[in-house]
Amino acid sequence: MGLWFDEIYDDMMRFGLRVEETLYSATSPFQKIDIVKTTKHGRALLLDELWMTSEGDEFYYHEMIAHPAMTTAPQIERVLVIGGGDGGTIREVLSYPEVKECVLVEIDGLVVDACRKWLPAIGTAWEDPRLTVVIEDAIAWVKAPDRGKFDVILVDGSDPVGPAEGLFGTPFYEACRSILHPHGVLVTQSESPVIYRETHLMAVRRLEEVFGNAWPYYSVVPIYNGGEWSWTYASAQTSPFDIIESRATRAEDHTRLYNSAYHRGAFAIPNRIKKELGR
Amino acid sequence: MGLWFDEIYDDMMRFGLRVEETLYSATSPFQKIDIVKTTKHGRALLLDELWMTSEGDEFYYHEMIAHPAMTTAPQIERVLVIGGGDGGTIREVLSYPEVKECVLVEIDGLVVDACRKWLPAIGTAWEDPRLTVVIEDAIAWVKAPDRGKFDVILVDGSDPVGPAEGLFGTPFYEACRSILHPHGVLVTQSESPVIYRETHLMAVRRLEEVFGNAWPYYSVVPIYNGGEWSWTYASAQTSPFDIIESRATRAEDHTRLYNSAYHRGAFAIPNRIKKELGR
Repeated sequence: MGLWFDEIYDDMMRFGLRVEETLYSATSPFQKIDIVKTTKHGRALLLDELWMTSEGDEFYYHEMIAHPAMTTAPQIERVLVIGGGDGGTIREVLSYPEVKECVLVEIDGLVVDACRKWLPAIGTAWEDPRLTVVIEDAIAWVKAPDRGKFDVILVDGSDPVGPAEGLFGTPFYEACRSILHPHGVLVTQSESPVIYRETHLMAVRRLEEVFGNAWPYYSVVPIYNGGEWSWTYASAQTSPFDIIESRATRAEDHTRLYNSAYHRGAFAIPNRIKKELGR
Repeated sequence: MGLWFDEIYDDMMRFGLRVEETLYSATSPFQKIDIVKTTKHGRALLLDELWMTSEGDEFYYHEMIAHPAMTTAPQIERVLVIGGGDGGTIREVLSYPEVKECVLVEIDGLVVDACRKWLPAIGTAWEDPRLTVVIEDAIAWVKAPDRGKFDVILVDGSDPVGPAEGLFGTPFYEACRSILHPHGVLVTQSESPVIYRETHLMAVRRLEEVFGNAWPYYSVVPIYNGGEWSWTYASAQTSPFDIIESRATRAEDHTRLYNSAYHRGAFAIPNRIKKELGR
């Protein structure tokens, strides 16, 4: 019988899983990294003692960050994933045979190394020849010349404190837009609309300013405190509601949460957020 | 600084809130009842040491059990609420001026007494002259003669162990159907589609057998372990997609989660549940 490990929110609320064994523990220049074996969800990754993902429920997050963009962007040949060091998002991206090149830019090489070794059930696509892994700060990487244009950019970072803070900034969104085709789609995780309401609203508003259009969408991530989670879809020319059904149908062969009806439903905005966004 | 109180699921997962004070504690013939003051969510009700509702997040559950039925049933003059002793569901029901009579049948009078006294911010409609409170076992109550016909029945019971077990049985659903107009709508809470997957699927299938049509729908209840929650809508003649927009628009004046787009979106079924239901 293992000990409880709890993610504690503001000393008022906590979500805990029983941990049987710590498989890996290290401190990188960016954060504390732990990979543990839980009784309920199998192996799980913690960064700075916050639950990031687990074998048992990673599909909630990874399906919802990847498929709304991948089933609507008119072209999905070149995909950029920022963050996502656990390998779950690139796995969903690379499930599309249309993808010719996927670049993962993750700031923390230790996260990638640890997840490749200890979470192989999540990161099943590390050996895909279409993948390039870059260990670099994405905020600088996206601004460098000669990146070419991408069809899809997925921003799979952690909370906007520490290394991921700049991933919620207007300069970063502008740099992303400059390397995205006009028909391209950017999706970023945009936090809990309740626990991090201000950050959520700010991300939606900034993306709307930069891209002209931004649609928040909502689902659950049981391992995250509060359960409710959001992502935001931004595109100058593409709508999240024009689903290419043939792609969605193929994705639905393996997805556990995502399907095209679920995709449409996720874009319904909770009423108080809708009012705050003036929609 | 209060102590943590955790709802523990299967000794593997827990959700905890800091509790500053126990306001009420009693054991009825049916269950242990506690009302506590939490730091995060204000006052909260526990039954048998499981979080039932709290001032801070009760709207998630009460809006979603009430409004999909109330905005689609062609007529909403007579409404029956089963369980719901905290008063949140009747509050949402009685927000519709079309309602002429609302009957609450709750098995545990001690829950009603405690909630009326200690959770007045949730139960704001106890004094409404259209309300009749009956302290009786709903399973027997619905089978008695001369109940007349209802337009809407909302089954707001706890988990199907102990007093609420029969609320998931085919005989109970058949009795409800017999006191519901053919155009009437029944909605029942139908558990977490993940943690209580079998119960969820069983409820949907039984309701489909009894009513000919049953549509599960999904949202979050942050205070419940796992976050994800479901309700199921059953009706012989009415569809959950034919929303009477004038009623929804009125409800949206006060709702924090519900609006007609959110209503439609909630009926998208997670992919693995969709497959298991053969839809």
